[in-house]
Amino acid sequence: MKKLSSILLIFIVLLLPLHAGGNQEKQTGSTPELHANRNLKYVFLFIGDGMALPQINAAEAYLMAKEEKDSPVKLSFSQFPVTGMCTTYSANSYITDSAAAATALASGRKTANGILNMDESKKTTFKTIAEFLHEKGFKIGIISTVSIDHATPAAFYAHQPSRGNYYEISLELAKSGFEFFAGGGLKDPEGKKSKKEGEKNNALEEAKKAGYKILNSIKDIEGLSKNDAEKVIVMNPVLSSSSLAMPYKIDRDKTSLNLADFTKKAIEFLENPKGFFIMVEGGKIDWACHANDAVAAIHDVLDFNSAVEAALDFAKIHPDETLIVVTGDHETGGLTMGFAGTRYSSAFSKLTKQKLSFEEFNKIIDKYKEKENLTVEDLLPVLKENFGLEDLSIREKDLLENAIHASINNATSQDEASYLLYGGYEPITVTITHIINNRAGLGWTSYSHTAVPVPVYAKGPGAEVFTGYYDNTEIPKRLSRLLDTNL
Amino acid sequence: MKKLSSILLIFIVLLLPLHAGGNQEKQTGSTPELHANRNLKYVFLFIGDGMALPQINAAEAYLMAKEEKDSPVKLSFSQFPVTGMCTTYSANSYITDSAAAATALASGRKTANGILNMDESKKTTFKTIAEFLHEKGFKIGIISTVSIDHATPAAFYAHQPSRGNYYEISLELAKSGFEFFAGGGLKDPEGKKSKKEGEKNNALEEAKKAGYKILNSIKDIEGLSKNDAEKVIVMNPVLSSSSLAMPYKIDRDKTSLNLADFTKKAIEFLENPKGFFIMVEGGKIDWACHANDAVAAIHDVLDFNSAVEAALDFAKIHPDETLIVVTGDHETGGLTMGFAGTRYSSAFSKLTKQKLSFEEFNKIIDKYKEKENLTVEDLLPVLKENFGLEDLSIREKDLLENAIHASINNATSQDEASYLLYGGYEPITVTITHIINNRAGLGWTSYSHTAVPVPVYAKGPGAEVFTGYYDNTEIPKRLSRLLDTNL
Repeated sequence: MKKLSSILLIFIVLLLPLHAGGNQEKQTGSTPELHANRNLKYVFLFIGDGMALPQINAAEAYLMAKEEKDSPVKLSFSQFPVTGMCTTYSANSYITDSAAAATALASGRKTANGILNMDESKKTTFKTIAEFLHEKGFKIGIISTVSIDHATPAAFYAHQPSRGNYYEISLELAKSGFEFFAGGGLKDPEGKKSKKEGEKNNALEEAKKAGYKILNSIKDIEGLSKNDAEKVIVMNPVLSSSSLAMPYKIDRDKTSLNLADFTKKAIEFLENPKGFFIMVEGGKIDWACHANDAVAAIHDVLDFNSAVEAALDFAKIHPDETLIVVTGDHETGGLTMGFAGTRYSSAFSKLTKQKLSFEEFNKIIDKYKEKENLTVEDLLPVLKENFGLEDLSIREKDLLENAIHASINNATSQDEASYLLYGGYEPITVTITHIINNRAGLGWTSYSHTAVPVPVYAKGPGAEVFTGYYDNTEIPKRLSRLLDTNL
Repeated sequence: MKKLSSILLIFIVLLLPLHAGGNQEKQTGSTPELHANRNLKYVFLFIGDGMALPQINAAEAYLMAKEEKDSPVKLSFSQFPVTGMCTTYSANSYITDSAAAATALASGRKTANGILNMDESKKTTFKTIAEFLHEKGFKIGIISTVSIDHATPAAFYAHQPSRGNYYEISLELAKSGFEFFAGGGLKDPEGKKSKKEGEKNNALEEAKKAGYKILNSIKDIEGLSKNDAEKVIVMNPVLSSSSLAMPYKIDRDKTSLNLADFTKKAIEFLENPKGFFIMVEGGKIDWACHANDAVAAIHDVLDFNSAVEAALDFAKIHPDETLIVVTGDHETGGLTMGFAGTRYSSAFSKLTKQKLSFEEFNKIIDKYKEKENLTVEDLLPVLKENFGLEDLSIREKDLLENAIHASINNATSQDEASYLLYGGYEPITVTITHIINNRAGLGWTSYSHTAVPVPVYAKGPGAEVFTGYYDNTEIPKRLSRLLDTNL
């Protein structure tokens, strides 16, 4: 009898990969008829906001230049054995926003831009993969470099007609019961910006009542152990006052934690025999790409990659139980690895001298703008110091002169010509990042998101179902099949 | 005994997919230790020159607009069950040219831009997958929409220090023994442009001596049967006099064949019990992208897709013996699915009114340029008729006025500002395609190739080894492992 069941077990083990492989024919278009993987217990979903192939390849080319190698230095996740690609369009726009994209990735449903886990009519709510798994006994972690109530993290626990309902989102967070939240802060826990009358309890107080411990010092966060609390909300000690996000990786010092720190802490805090689901967002890759600042974006891609490495370290210990899926929610900026002016040449070493993000450089420019009759010459020392930028060509000097003029005169994004040049960003700074990026051989076509499809990388049991070119809604659907939930 | 071998056979069949799946760990970076697939007999390698994800997605968005659908209409090959991604850099440039890229795809070796199947020192030659398979008894087909001696097709049979050695390339073609060549013409079969003294036999005469039948009328090509010849060179009846390429798909009439016609004919002519290897290049996707003409590129992507469908029809009859791999050699133009001016909106229906390629429109513009004091108003009827372009904005009118001025004054690509605007193309025409593309929500960053990684799509036995993110040299290496050759 024992022998028979051993044979049966071997037979099942042999058959499992056949099922995955044999269903390839059916993977075209709709959800493959794949089978639940009974071993699978620990699931990571990494989302690089605004991250598509150009952002990843730019980071790899940057490392090539920095490490003086002959070929691109692959990121950890881009070496995953299985890859796929996703379309990202939303229900009402070929170019998605982060709310509709994150809804697709969390609940497998299309909705209109701006909406979180509700249908276009804003009547029906969608249940997310995180909620399904939580009901099944999985512990849930939601991590981001931006505020924890921002569209992407919110899409895993909130259901709102508008991504801007920050107060309502933070109340949903408090009620979610999810065990681990980490990242930036909360934008409106007091409901100051909420139009809703009536109940205005502070969402953080509500969270405390619901059993959450709230941590925001490095010492407390690093010291956090499983026994300290059942549920935690972890906020980075350093936050931008306006966005409540963590600083760009390139601007962080020791007063800030990194995405990998949060990911490691989540793993430590959530590991349990019933399993966990951890979503980690690199949220500011997108913001840097909106501003056409490739170097700030690259550093945030590298920060994101380090967070994936924390998951990989865990997967090494639990290889048969851990699935890691990495993707982007959409591309941002229309980044490409070529620029008309540099034709067939690239010079990525020109990117390695940039020391800060556009955001920090804006603060420097603000001081210069107080000077009367600001000229390009006045800026030369600060350009060299912060970007390694010198020997301006006539064209580059012209661009900067125009930018100074636009900056002093407060050119607005209402003016089309000015918008095409500066996208509503500080004209001098965005002109500098354009010059640096173009010199390196990078081009941009937009200050918004684009519809360029995003790549998917998967590793671990079940990874093989993520190959193919499918819609972003397929990601939670395929995860759901593997994990046997009803999404 | 019979029963034992049956059990053994079942065991082997069960184990085979395990091998492919179980090796996923090893697929990161280098060639996976995969095993030959003994069934595999018919192999197609489709190469979209200059075709990456943006070109494919643009074609799918175009079909969505044309067919009035809500979501992108998937191409046949983009529905393949297995997908991967490739880096494309060459030995001496992060941005490859088509010679180095095709060398990588044909022989699995890196070389410098401009070289065909030789190392950077131009001393050692590389043997291609087509040559290995030919020795093994496979029949070989080489098909392109451009001249048959152009870099991509040439890389499967020629070995030259320069892709420009058209005479030497056509002599190698004549000596290759490959059974089927089809596409455009030959650029220099008489050696007129060759610097080499001495032997100057006409390459087409050499080919005839070697047993090739040369066909260039629709009647002869359509009538070609297996018994007519052992080896054929098929030239499209309509060729551009300068490039010897087929017309852009959008410009073709009934006097031209299509890429699918050649592919079907190749299958018919080459099918035999020992198998075949057919390489099909969509060569003018690249040319249209160089000129930033998205609609011409899209029509050539659709022509390419129809050729893949011809292979799919064959694969339906021989599903266990046919592998189809589709990829691009590099991206061209830095195309993205977003433009600063249109922000989050797209309007692909604006692309569907374009009736001809930039090349054909240049001929119309040439006539207008004879007119004295040409104005934008003079062009309005022809813009409406050929591009559906009307209601020019102030910015668009300015751009066209400048382009008319540049065109009349023969602006050259030596002038940097002019090159950024027009890339050395006819200023009026390229400005019109920019306007149309931007209105639709497409952006371009270059007139050259870019280093944006390219997608890979695979279907059929062995397809699973093409998932992952690897270098373009891996494609022939993995094919070689599957087909048990020594490449």
